[in-house]
Amino acid sequence: MNQLQSIDRLSLNQITTNRWSLKEAVEGSARAEVPWIALWRHKIEEIGLKESKRIIRDAGIKVSSICRGGMFPAPTEAERKERIDDNRRAVDEAAELGTDVLVLVCGPAPNKDLSGARQIVADGIEELIPYAKERGIKLGVEPLHPMYAAERSVIVSLAQANDLAEKYSPDEVGVVVDVFHIWWDPDMFKQIARAKGRILGYHVSDWIVPTPDLLMGRGMMGDGVIDLRPIRLAVEEAGYKGPIEVEIFNQEIWDQPGDDVLALMKDRYIKYV
Amino acid sequence: MNQLQSIDRLSLNQITTNRWSLKEAVEGSARAEVPWIALWRHKIEEIGLKESKRIIRDAGIKVSSICRGGMFPAPTEAERKERIDDNRRAVDEAAELGTDVLVLVCGPAPNKDLSGARQIVADGIEELIPYAKERGIKLGVEPLHPMYAAERSVIVSLAQANDLAEKYSPDEVGVVVDVFHIWWDPDMFKQIARAKGRILGYHVSDWIVPTPDLLMGRGMMGDGVIDLRPIRLAVEEAGYKGPIEVEIFNQEIWDQPGDDVLALMKDRYIKYV
Repeated sequence: MNQLQSIDRLSLNQITTNRWSLKEAVEGSARAEVPWIALWRHKIEEIGLKESKRIIRDAGIKVSSICRGGMFPAPTEAERKERIDDNRRAVDEAAELGTDVLVLVCGPAPNKDLSGARQIVADGIEELIPYAKERGIKLGVEPLHPMYAAERSVIVSLAQANDLAEKYSPDEVGVVVDVFHIWWDPDMFKQIARAKGRILGYHVSDWIVPTPDLLMGRGMMGDGVIDLRPIRLAVEEAGYKGPIEVEIFNQEIWDQPGDDVLALMKDRYIKYV
Repeated sequence: MNQLQSIDRLSLNQITTNRWSLKEAVEGSARAEVPWIALWRHKIEEIGLKESKRIIRDAGIKVSSICRGGMFPAPTEAERKERIDDNRRAVDEAAELGTDVLVLVCGPAPNKDLSGARQIVADGIEELIPYAKERGIKLGVEPLHPMYAAERSVIVSLAQANDLAEKYSPDEVGVVVDVFHIWWDPDMFKQIARAKGRILGYHVSDWIVPTPDLLMGRGMMGDGVIDLRPIRLAVEEAGYKGPIEVEIFNQEIWDQPGDDVLALMKDRYIKYV
């Protein structure tokens, strides 16, 4: 019931085909008729913004989001300022590439002071908003799984992301919902409902068992234990009807030919998402 | 400030010296003048309950807890009943060995129905209480880190453990606070305070960076990013003055001579806990 009827919302988060360059990922998406792509900044950097833009336009592919801004907490004031500057560049790239969402992975603490780092994140978002707003870019706070708290993000739950976002207009700050990061949370459905009107992205993958690795252990939809459909329906109930990104860090998947990965991804998207 | 002044609350959770048998761990603790030990049931089983009891009594070591009961969710009604029976045996062992705490690691879901599994946990605890109470054993619900949600415990936050415990008298059900499992939680201090009068155990270790492995990645106190002292003070503020278990799953530590591990553990306990 409530199965998706087409792939018109499907987006390839290009980390899923990590061996592919930006050009290969965009052309691969076009071949597979996957209409959306989410770009990573290090892939854009390899060929430059102008060339990236040309490739995307020529292929007729739409950009669902840019990964990633954020990483606010730094040990010194000077470094924190540098990171804000880098976030402004990410905003410019997002605007240039025709998406209105910059995903924020907020960063780990530079020391043992978790709550201090969380305040630096809040301050960083506050500082970034005017620049982003002028360029039509919304900031999407993506909570990461708590197992990344020490190395990637002090924002570890959708509740926290909602707390950060709710201080602002939905035109300024929203949240990004990734099933891999929040599926375990007893509060998940409540927090998805609370994010109504503020969900800026929806990411799918699966949690595989046994979990081989903290970073590289994500699975293709249907290969793990996450009951995906009710989550997608809840996200839609909360007003999000935009692109659905498939974002998978997994060496076995990375080692497969990209075209095969896209074929499998399309199939699983209809079956499980 | 507020440093511990002695090791009179220090307990060796015997998984920390996993190569040692129960006898070796108890005698090692006695040599190191560590007054408490937490026993694992598979170690008790190797030599039997009677012999375990004799060894502990002869060494003059006190038992802080028995690991573990729990594991309630099972695919069939018959298997769920078997697990309750096994929990009753764990209660008997705890009573026989002179502790009043049985730690509950609540178990993963047998399928994709997380909330169903959480209900089975609640039902299992409800069913176990009368038997445990008659034998003077309190049930200590230990929330595990969310990264274990698929394989070890659908109870993943202290908030959840408190929800489960608060339905009962503190003589029946409480919570076990383990820093490794909850240090990332923005709600941690609030939930520790909420657990006032119900904390039945406190476990320490550290979160090391980079984290080498989901299961075997714990570190010795001081080797990681957890700010331990404020957590211990909060636990004491919430009324817990009992034994503090050092529980470390880490191959490098397991490979060291047990006496060296205990010496290091005592030193780090005073410095960091």
